[in-house]
Amino acid sequence: MSLCPLEFRYGSNDMRVIFSRENIIKKMIEVELRLYKALEECGIVPKGYYEAFSKCVGSITVRPEEVDKREEVLGHDVVALLSILTDRCGDASRFLHYGATSNDVIDTVWGLLVRDALGLIKKKLVSSIRLLMRLTREYKDLIMVGRTHGQHALPITLGFKLANYVYELTRSLERLVDVESRVVRGKMAGAVGTMAGWRGKGLCVESVVMRELNLRPHEITTQVVPRDGFAELVSVIAILASQIERFGVEVRELMRPEILELAEGVGGRVGSSTMPHKANPVECEKISGLTRVLRGLVVPAIEDIVLWHERDLSNSSAERLLIPHTFMLIDEILDTFNEVLSNLKVYPENMIKNLKLSKGAIMSESLMLKLTDKGLSRYEAHRVVRELVTKALRSGSELIDVVLNEPEVLKYLSVDEVREALDYSKYLGNYNELIERTLKYAEEVIKSVST
Amino acid sequence: MSLCPLEFRYGSNDMRVIFSRENIIKKMIEVELRLYKALEECGIVPKGYYEAFSKCVGSITVRPEEVDKREEVLGHDVVALLSILTDRCGDASRFLHYGATSNDVIDTVWGLLVRDALGLIKKKLVSSIRLLMRLTREYKDLIMVGRTHGQHALPITLGFKLANYVYELTRSLERLVDVESRVVRGKMAGAVGTMAGWRGKGLCVESVVMRELNLRPHEITTQVVPRDGFAELVSVIAILASQIERFGVEVRELMRPEILELAEGVGGRVGSSTMPHKANPVECEKISGLTRVLRGLVVPAIEDIVLWHERDLSNSSAERLLIPHTFMLIDEILDTFNEVLSNLKVYPENMIKNLKLSKGAIMSESLMLKLTDKGLSRYEAHRVVRELVTKALRSGSELIDVVLNEPEVLKYLSVDEVREALDYSKYLGNYNELIERTLKYAEEVIKSVST
Amino acid sequence: MSLCPLEFRYGSNDMRVIFSRENIIKKMIEVELRLYKALEECGIVPKGYYEAFSKCVGSITVRPEEVDKREEVLGHDVVALLSILTDRCGDASRFLHYGATSNDVIDTVWGLLVRDALGLIKKKLVSSIRLLMRLTREYKDLIMVGRTHGQHALPITLGFKLANYVYELTRSLERLVDVESRVVRGKMAGAVGTMAGWRGKGLCVESVVMRELNLRPHEITTQVVPRDGFAELVSVIAILASQIERFGVEVRELMRPEILELAEGVGGRVGSSTMPHKANPVECEKISGLTRVLRGLVVPAIEDIVLWHERDLSNSSAERLLIPHTFMLIDEILDTFNEVLSNLKVYPENMIKNLKLSKGAIMSESLMLKLTDKGLSRYEAHRVVRELVTKALRSGSELIDVVLNEPEVLKYLSVDEVREALDYSKYLGNYNELIERTLKYAEEVIKSVST
Amino acid sequence: MSLCPLEFRYGSNDMRVIFSRENIIKKMIEVELRLYKALEECGIVPKGYYEAFSKCVGSITVRPEEVDKREEVLGHDVVALLSILTDRCGDASRFLHYGATSNDVIDTVWGLLVRDALGLIKKKLVSSIRLLMRLTREYKDLIMVGRTHGQHALPITLGFKLANYVYELTRSLERLVDVESRVVRGKMAGAVGTMAGWRGKGLCVESVVMRELNLRPHEITTQVVPRDGFAELVSVIAILASQIERFGVEVRELMRPEILELAEGVGGRVGSSTMPHKANPVECEKISGLTRVLRGLVVPAIEDIVLWHERDLSNSSAERLLIPHTFMLIDEILDTFNEVLSNLKVYPENMIKNLKLSKGAIMSESLMLKLTDKGLSRYEAHRVVRELVTKALRSGSELIDVVLNEPEVLKYLSVDEVREALDYSKYLGNYNELIERTLKYAEEVIKSVST
Repeated sequence: MSLCPLEFRYGSNDMRVIFSRENIIKKMIEVELRLYKALEECGIVPKGYYEAFSKCVGSITVRPEEVDKREEVLGHDVVALLSILTDRCGDASRFLHYGATSNDVIDTVWGLLVRDALGLIKKKLVSSIRLLMRLTREYKDLIMVGRTHGQHALPITLGFKLANYVYELTRSLERLVDVESRVVRGKMAGAVGTMAGWRGKGLCVESVVMRELNLRPHEITTQVVPRDGFAELVSVIAILASQIERFGVEVRELMRPEILELAEGVGGRVGSSTMPHKANPVECEKISGLTRVLRGLVVPAIEDIVLWHERDLSNSSAERLLIPHTFMLIDEILDTFNEVLSNLKVYPENMIKNLKLSKGAIMSESLMLKLTDKGLSRYEAHRVVRELVTKALRSGSELIDVVLNEPEVLKYLSVDEVREALDYSKYLGNYNELIERTLKYAEEVIKSVST
Repeated sequence: MSLCPLEFRYGSNDMRVIFSRENIIKKMIEVELRLYKALEECGIVPKGYYEAFSKCVGSITVRPEEVDKREEVLGHDVVALLSILTDRCGDASRFLHYGATSNDVIDTVWGLLVRDALGLIKKKLVSSIRLLMRLTREYKDLIMVGRTHGQHALPITLGFKLANYVYELTRSLERLVDVESRVVRGKMAGAVGTMAGWRGKGLCVESVVMRELNLRPHEITTQVVPRDGFAELVSVIAILASQIERFGVEVRELMRPEILELAEGVGGRVGSSTMPHKANPVECEKISGLTRVLRGLVVPAIEDIVLWHERDLSNSSAERLLIPHTFMLIDEILDTFNEVLSNLKVYPENMIKNLKLSKGAIMSESLMLKLTDKGLSRYEAHRVVRELVTKALRSGSELIDVVLNEPEVLKYLSVDEVREALDYSKYLGNYNELIERTLKYAEEVIKSVST
Repeated sequence: MSLCPLEFRYGSNDMRVIFSRENIIKKMIEVELRLYKALEECGIVPKGYYEAFSKCVGSITVRPEEVDKREEVLGHDVVALLSILTDRCGDASRFLHYGATSNDVIDTVWGLLVRDALGLIKKKLVSSIRLLMRLTREYKDLIMVGRTHGQHALPITLGFKLANYVYELTRSLERLVDVESRVVRGKMAGAVGTMAGWRGKGLCVESVVMRELNLRPHEITTQVVPRDGFAELVSVIAILASQIERFGVEVRELMRPEILELAEGVGGRVGSSTMPHKANPVECEKISGLTRVLRGLVVPAIEDIVLWHERDLSNSSAERLLIPHTFMLIDEILDTFNEVLSNLKVYPENMIKNLKLSKGAIMSESLMLKLTDKGLSRYEAHRVVRELVTKALRSGSELIDVVLNEPEVLKYLSVDEVREALDYSKYLGNYNELIERTLKYAEEVIKSVST
Repeated sequence: MSLCPLEFRYGSNDMRVIFSRENIIKKMIEVELRLYKALEECGIVPKGYYEAFSKCVGSITVRPEEVDKREEVLGHDVVALLSILTDRCGDASRFLHYGATSNDVIDTVWGLLVRDALGLIKKKLVSSIRLLMRLTREYKDLIMVGRTHGQHALPITLGFKLANYVYELTRSLERLVDVESRVVRGKMAGAVGTMAGWRGKGLCVESVVMRELNLRPHEITTQVVPRDGFAELVSVIAILASQIERFGVEVRELMRPEILELAEGVGGRVGSSTMPHKANPVECEKISGLTRVLRGLVVPAIEDIVLWHERDLSNSSAERLLIPHTFMLIDEILDTFNEVLSNLKVYPENMIKNLKLSKGAIMSESLMLKLTDKGLSRYEAHRVVRELVTKALRSGSELIDVVLNEPEVLKYLSVDEVREALDYSKYLGNYNELIERTLKYAEEVIKSVST
């Protein structure tokens, strides 16, 4: 019986495994084991125990239900796990968890889980960016309407539009790398962070555990690591999701039947239970819904920072939900995004049709600048062209026809100059160099991530 | 394998059952059945089909996994369910879902689930209020420090403190009743809300379905019911949780060893994995953590209002998570609150000790007003008393000793008057009437809810 | 020099005056005056002082800058004001503020300001609803495309679309009334809420002050009134704003040049600094931006509930910003909304054009149900019609032509029946009754508010 | 008349000037001027105009009220400013704004303002960190209670506590540097980002403008720069504020009269209008209130990312409020924090008193580990010590007395060993090295920022 859609509906199994209770318990035992090794290596506990304990835990499995059952009595999940391990491994567990506090384990496990989860997310994000880069190249020169305020502004190309998404998402990739250095860290410092239990050998213990886990430690901690790392993590993931939502809205809008320049490629799925003709951008709509939820997780993650003194427990219950939910949501969003990108439908003929819809008014800036070149002030030219456009719209005429009938304009421009000013394909500026600059930047960031 | 703590850790089973996939499917079938009945009763479909279909669905069970499997092919969960029912019930399902759209079912099911869930929440909230009322009466006259800014202000009684929580929570009970009238409603109006599929008999269909389910319909809808109801629901539940958090913070603070006036009653649980002496207010801390998450659900719930035209789908994925999570979280918070209230420890001796801590300074207002009565302006009296208090604090003396050595004061007040002015038990104002007024108000609201 | 756009750009002057510092000081003095009267009337202070003080404050003005200057020394704004009044009114102010705490004044002033502000908002909201009702009636029968997922679903009428907004906004009007009863209240209860300073006559003091201000008191308070009222207030206002944003998005979308069914009526304003042809839905876009900010104020308003013990001060600085900003933002949003409604442009010819865009596919449900009536199961009919629609879309034909060439369909339906099934104007269901039901409901709520 | 507390109450004048309307207009003119220069340098417009225009604007001032007045007619603030400049500078303004769009100016101005504002914030944050570092060194060895869950955990030193804040805030300093590289950038790319208006010389124009302003351009843009930069900015500032709030809560808690280990140093300010004895942590409480508001600005800032196509306007109104408010709030928070740090009162005698409050129970971990060393398993030792502590607490005895009377323990430990195990000063672990490691880290980050 389940109720959270992340259990069965959203998120990949790869990500689900990372935050599964089974994996968390496995990682907790791993951290206890590394600590045991460190205790021995640093000369805090006698030789031999570690190996015995290591053998023991290598041969057993602890199921979540066992921990639950023990926790009901003991009221503390780490204590419950320790108690089970002690029962199972007997004398070998004599120095288990020696000098440590629960959050040495919990926070270090978070570090490990977040490393794996961020690895998965970065991989999927790089895939998305690569897909977008491919589409950018493919449609580099495909002219279409550039839209501001939902209105026609100036012509662009589809590749140029997509390159903007390449840029935006690459910035997120940078952010993921930045936050990783602050959040993928471990902690082994005892009940209030002083390492008091290890008789002055705390730095040795920390160093061995971190070496074994290939993690950097925090410079200093209280009982817990500072929560600003998680706050930043959830923030930058919500930012990434919102960028993808922006793309989803792009598709949803451009898939409207009146526009139909792009569309979600749909398979055999049924659009509506009652309207047999419907083909809906349901994947992109899902992205919007899940992103909304993700944004809602940011503020609680930031609130978690404000812990009392050397810590209170209020972050604990919150994070049990916030961290896995954040990763499962972005995971589903990225998978959906990649699916949408891989199946994106493009309708060049509708792009042309829509470009012509304004009967040339979309080229008004071009005309205005030409008039400015020829002697009008830019400000006057704006007024003149505005009147011409209004005239064209009111009469339902092509702008060029109105312009060529306007002696005031022809004083400044020849017929050929007017034609050139109103030619879409000649008013795309430096789109090509800008695309190239962007792709180069993306390549560099991606390369630096992979290394 | 599970990762959401609402599946196994937080929330009661009663609530979990309400939002379980099994129950949702059951309710969806129930709504389809009521619709079938309405179609027959309103004369839209021939007699006989409803009974056959009713018999058929009475004899079968549809498991979530079946729906999932079918949805993988069809891409739509309601269509998947209809397809399963059609396969199972054959010709009897000929008019199944006739004229309806998926959200006639989905939104009406939400109405039913929210009714059940709100019922549970209201019941638990009434229990909490009753527990608080009992404690208010029990400790009506137990004097303790009233604190503002964390500093000692004036004496109050524990009952007076608790009565404030009675008041605050009763206001939430009112809000739950208010929102219920707007959110526990059904919808049976077809693909865009016009009831087009039922040949002019839509109001009859709606009326029969709602009668059968004992729900009020919305006055008008698009494809979906307006989402402001959910937004209000999540808001008022987050407000309720925050009020309970306020109580939790009260306990956490008053349980500090330096204060120790109240404490969570703990059973045999272990406070810390490494500090054997620890007894921590973990229940109240959990309330803080979960409330934080709940507050984060408010903004996405409000964002869901902004659907395009006759609806877009972005609310759907969000609500699958937001609604069950909201109820599971408040359910856990209320259960925990009731647990804390039932086991609350009270330390009257520490209350007295703390009351005396300021050596009488806590009575400074009383002294100031007495001086005002006797001729000083309130403003001058404030200055005079401030100086006396500062003197007492600096010298570590009891305020009364300083005052009785101050000729300036003795010009206005006799020794007995000073003693009376500094007597805690005589400076509790109308606490008694205020408590009674509050309990009466709470009784009335509770009574009106039960009816 | 100013930086907050609410000072000079957004919000009406009527609202700005309510939350101006000048008005706040005026109201604070008013509350002090009422308290003085109550002290006399209840026999706590000698007769005569009140009248003298009343005369004095009637003859003076306290400017914000004076209070600021005094506050710099004293560190407390209410104390600063009291000090100024005492300086100015001399002995008459001897009993000024007697037995009261700053928040008796501050919270009661909030009650007064919120009453005025809510009054203004309710008035503007009723205007919006009335405008919408008028438009609903005017365009009751104007057929247009109903859209779900941004795709064509079924025909509706513009009046039907607008009636949904009537309904949604009327629900917000109900909410404003509900919250008003909880938030427009006063407090006169002293430093910790016990009324200790008034020698047992606290209830008399409270009663006189509230009578004079025509306010209901809270049943009980700490030093401050409970903050759930403000939290509810900001929530319901953010919900209202989001409903209006939904309308704004409706206009922004339907104003796209490819659709152009509705448009913001623009005056002489310039759409773009560089594109002379642009006419942008800038008013509706502004609504989206400001609503976004408003939603962000909800969570802090809810957090303010969690005050320590008998209060801490953290709500104070937050509310200084949250409450005026909330009201100024909704004020601007409502004014803009009313402006948009008053100047809304409607393009019936484009509605027809768009309705025909799908070549009849929009009527697929109707055809499916007809086939179900004639013997197919609804489920089979869905599949059959889906195939026909796909065929029509692929071949670019009108659906009716495809259908009339399909012997499979003609087995069940005559040509006339097909024609009727595909006639837009005959598939509007009970839109008329639903509109009437909605208008009636709105009228009743509005009436109950005015009374 | 003003209502926003950022106008007169919160935030420094330095910051207020940056976001003042006067400064914004000044910067807009500056950007227009740089563009003019670029147009000439790149050979797009004839020589001479730039100099004439430069001279003209150097000799005039444009007041916000003028722009407002003009905007009322024209409906667009940048157009209004251009119109004023054109009126004033006549023919010299012929090529003013040539090829540019409003957001070339607006977004580049944001870049300039944010650079100045971030500079101020970084400077203040570095001051805070340096103050904290000085206090850390000063109190490096001052032993006090380490608290988890509000309960006594283990001894720490005040310096160790403060070093944790040094660490946390230094992480924020890193974040400010990271975000700066993404948000302090300019844009000069025309109406849809293609640079279409500059006849293929767009990259030259961009390059000159950016060189003149010493800004990096974005790699590519739509009409506007991507909004993820602002979203990240507001997020990391809210994180910083929450870290400072954590310190504020530390002080508020430790200033409770029952604890009184730290206190806000207060000057002559009056604590309460009615309780002459009150000294309240009002500065730290203000930090909590303002931080709450700041957190509320995060979600709208993230929502602003989701703009339609080449931009819609919804970000504009939101940002007019969000960006200045974010900076004014963090500015006030940092100033207050520095004030609190500079005047922090420390009560070593109370630290000792509180340390002894638990009668040795705070040393239970130490005892447990010693027992583990001597032969008990850590798990058994936990149970044994837990019983001893419970016994001591129940009987009100010092833990050492109970332990020394327990033969079971004395089997393992000598009396001296028990004494050593329960000695606070010998159980501080590696606090010294950890502090040094942290200070070194902070020094390095600060140095890298200054460079």
